[in-house]
Amino acid sequence: MYIAMNRFKVLKDCTKDFEHVWFSRESYLHEMPGFIAFHLLKGPEKEDHHLYSSHTAWASYADFEAWTKSEAFRKTHDRAGNNKPMTLGHPEFEGFHVIQEVTPQGGVRRVAAE
Amino acid sequence: MYIAMNRFKVLKDCTKDFEHVWFSRESYLHEMPGFIAFHLLKGPEKEDHHLYSSHTAWASYADFEAWTKSEAFRKTHDRAGNNKPMTLGHPEFEGFHVIQEVTPQGGVRRVAAE
Repeated sequence: MYIAMNRFKVLKDCTKDFEHVWFSRESYLHEMPGFIAFHLLKGPEKEDHHLYSSHTAWASYADFEAWTKSEAFRKTHDRAGNNKPMTLGHPEFEGFHVIQEVTPQGGVRRVAAE
Repeated sequence: MYIAMNRFKVLKDCTKDFEHVWFSRESYLHEMPGFIAFHLLKGPEKEDHHLYSSHTAWASYADFEAWTKSEAFRKTHDRAGNNKPMTLGHPEFEGFHVIQEVTPQGGVRRVAAE
């Protein structure tokens, strides 16, 4: 499993607008092979911004890569560009491979990065 | 849903030892009310460290808080302290409230932070 994250430093007077963009736009993720889940996360408030993060879980890195090259990806990100700046700088991308998982059933599982 | 994350800057010659600690220690998370999932994530390699992150998803912030005050939490973190330093500085904690979710079934759901 591969998790693609973006960290957004949202200006404090733009948090409502920032959330509105996410809540009002269409998602094409569920059409993509290997898509597991997407979460938009609201994190801690810092001195000059409010931290948000988006997490998209994919079955594999290859599935994530295919999404970034898809028409659906282009459509989503074209629209995102139409908004006035609501963040300090660009989103910071970080990609992670899941290497261990614990489930409520008590299973602890080492996972091969893929 | 609430996600508790820790970010670890692991020294490059300590990544195997760092992973070994996680793979060999017992987890008590599944005993805790509201526990949804734990993932240990291996992220990008930086100039002087390798970034890792742990994610624990809880049904609510209250469930997370109860875990931090539990005997199980104390047991886990006591043991973690026995290891030689493998990271640059302390882990950086960040807590996030899930505010939007997309599922493979195509549902886009706004989530009340709890």
